[in-house]
Amino acid sequence: MPVELKTPLAIQAGDVRAAAERIRPLARRTPVFTSAGFDAESGVRAYFKCENLQRGGAFKIRGASNLILSLSGEALSRGVVAYSSGNHAQATAIAAHHVGARATIVMPEDAPRSKMEATRARGAHIVTYNRFQESREAIAAGILAETGATLVPPFDHPMIMAGQGTAAMELLEETGPLDALIAPVGGGGLLSGSATIARELNPEIRIFGAEPEGANDTLLSLEAGTRVTVPHPNTIADGLRSPKPGELTFPILQRFVERVLLVSDAELRATVKFLLLRLKILAEPSGAASVAAVLFRKLPPGIRSVGVIISGGNVDFEELARY
Amino acid sequence: MPVELKTPLAIQAGDVRAAAERIRPLARRTPVFTSAGFDAESGVRAYFKCENLQRGGAFKIRGASNLILSLSGEALSRGVVAYSSGNHAQATAIAAHHVGARATIVMPEDAPRSKMEATRARGAHIVTYNRFQESREAIAAGILAETGATLVPPFDHPMIMAGQGTAAMELLEETGPLDALIAPVGGGGLLSGSATIARELNPEIRIFGAEPEGANDTLLSLEAGTRVTVPHPNTIADGLRSPKPGELTFPILQRFVERVLLVSDAELRATVKFLLLRLKILAEPSGAASVAAVLFRKLPPGIRSVGVIISGGNVDFEELARY
Repeated sequence: MPVELKTPLAIQAGDVRAAAERIRPLARRTPVFTSAGFDAESGVRAYFKCENLQRGGAFKIRGASNLILSLSGEALSRGVVAYSSGNHAQATAIAAHHVGARATIVMPEDAPRSKMEATRARGAHIVTYNRFQESREAIAAGILAETGATLVPPFDHPMIMAGQGTAAMELLEETGPLDALIAPVGGGGLLSGSATIARELNPEIRIFGAEPEGANDTLLSLEAGTRVTVPHPNTIADGLRSPKPGELTFPILQRFVERVLLVSDAELRATVKFLLLRLKILAEPSGAASVAAVLFRKLPPGIRSVGVIISGGNVDFEELARY
Repeated sequence: MPVELKTPLAIQAGDVRAAAERIRPLARRTPVFTSAGFDAESGVRAYFKCENLQRGGAFKIRGASNLILSLSGEALSRGVVAYSSGNHAQATAIAAHHVGARATIVMPEDAPRSKMEATRARGAHIVTYNRFQESREAIAAGILAETGATLVPPFDHPMIMAGQGTAAMELLEETGPLDALIAPVGGGGLLSGSATIARELNPEIRIFGAEPEGANDTLLSLEAGTRVTVPHPNTIADGLRSPKPGELTFPILQRFVERVLLVSDAELRATVKFLLLRLKILAEPSGAASVAAVLFRKLPPGIRSVGVIISGGNVDFEELARY
C-alpha cells in the first residue's frame, strides 16, 4: 500500500499565535456578542465575533498588518502595493500608514467614490485602471518591478492567512470549546487561518464555510478535490466574489472544512436586516454569510454551539435602504 | 443672611452602587467604543457607552430591573404595571418575566405593531387605550387599584433613577476620569442617575444633557429655575418627548448639569447615519442625541474627553430607510 503523503500546509497554529502578538498595535480585539432572540430563531447557541466592528470595518486589517509589520525597514521604504476595491485596500492603507510606508492601491476606475475616498483618506496613493481593457495584476506587476515594493495579496499568502486566523483565536479564547465554527469564504484566507488555530485550541470543533449560491467556487472545489473556477460570480456579497480558492488556502480548507453551506442573496439581505434590527449592528452581505447559514438552519443536526465570524460591515447607506 | 437649605436629593451615589449589584443578573455590561474618525470630526476624544446594545435595545432595563428586583415576593405576586409605548415597556416586561411576575403594559391602541409584538413576546399582558379619549394614567390607576400591582414609572422614582445611573458608573469605571459626560434627556431618569454617580467617581467632571430643539423642556426648566411644560413636543426623537422634567429628577439636574445642549432633527438623522456607517452600530434618534451634540460641536471649549451615553437602538427599518 502506498503511503499517502499529505501536502505540507502553508501555515500552522504557531503562525497564528505569532500573528496575534505582531498585530496587537493595529488590530482591535473585537467584542463577542450573543443574542437570545437569534438562538431562538436558529435553534443553536451562537457566539458572534464582530469583525464588522474591527478597524477599517473588516477582519482584513489582521492579515494586512501581519504581513506589513513583518517587513524590514528597508522593504518598507520601497512601499507596499495591493489591488482591491474593497476592505483589503483600506486595511493595507491603514497598516502601511501606521508604519510610515507608502501604499499604492490599484483600483478599477469605476469603483465607488466612497471606497476610493476612504482609502485615500488613509494616506494611500490610488492607481486606477479600466476593468474591461486592463489587468490589475499587470498594473501591479509594473509598479512592483519599477519600485521594488512588496505586494500585499488579499488572501493567498501565509502571513495573510495567519493574520486572519487571529479572529478565530480571540473568539475561542473568549468562549472556550464550541461544537462548531463558521466563517464566510471568498478566497479562503479567513477560513484557512481560522480553521488552523481552531483545531489546535479545540480539536473536536467542526469547521464550516459559508458561500453565496452565486459564488460557490469553494464548494465545487471541495467536491471536485481540485480548485474549480466560477468565471462570473454573481452575488450581492461583493467580498466573496473571488472566482476560485487560493493555491495555499485550498489544501487547508480540504483538510479541515467539513462542508461549505450555501446562502442565497435573499437570505443575506434578511440576515443583514436581522443583525441590524435585533443586534443593532451593521454587517455587509459578505460579512453576514456565516450568520445567514446558521439563521436559515443549514448546519447539520447535533450542533448546539457555534462560533460565527461576522467578517465585515462596510455597506453603502443607499444599498441598505433598498433592502 | 438666611442659610440656603438645599432640597434633599432623591438618590445618592450609594443607591447607584447598590443598583449595580442588584441588576447584574438582568442588565448586560455594554461595551464602550471609540472612533478615531469621530474624534477627528468632533475635535473631542469620545467614549461611547453603547446602551443600544443593551438587553431590550436600551438602557431602560437598568431602572426597571432595579425596581422590580427590589420588590418582595408578595408584591411580585400582585404583578407590575407600566404605561409606555416604547423601550420602558419592553424593559418592564423583560424584568417581570425574569422574576415570574405578571406585567401589564398600558399602550395606545395605535402604537406600532412591532412594539406591541415585541412587548407581548416578552410575556407581558397589553391593555390598549384610545389616546384621544382616554388617559393612560387613569387606566393604570384602575388596574393598580383592582390588582394591588406595583407601578413601574418611566423615570420619576428613586429606584429607576439609581438603576439608570449604572450606565455612567460602568462607563467611568472603564475609562477613568473624563473632562465631561453627556446623556440624552427625556424625563431625566438617565441623566440624574448618571450625574449622581459620575460626580462621586470623578468630582471635577462636567455634566451635560442633550435635548431635541422641539422638546426642550429641561433646558427651559433649568433656565427658569422651575419645571416648565412644553405641551406638544415635536421631534423625531420619540423617547425624548416627555413634556416636563420629573419632580425627583429635576432637583438633581439643577444641582449637577452645567448646560443642556439642543440638537435639531436633521442633526439627529445625520448622527444616526454616522454611527451606522462609521461605527457600524444602530442607534435610535433619541439614543443618538448625546452623540449629535458632540459631533456638531456644541460642547463648550476646553473639553478634551467626553463620555457619551448612546441610550437606545430601537428604530424601524422603514424609518431608517427614509434617512
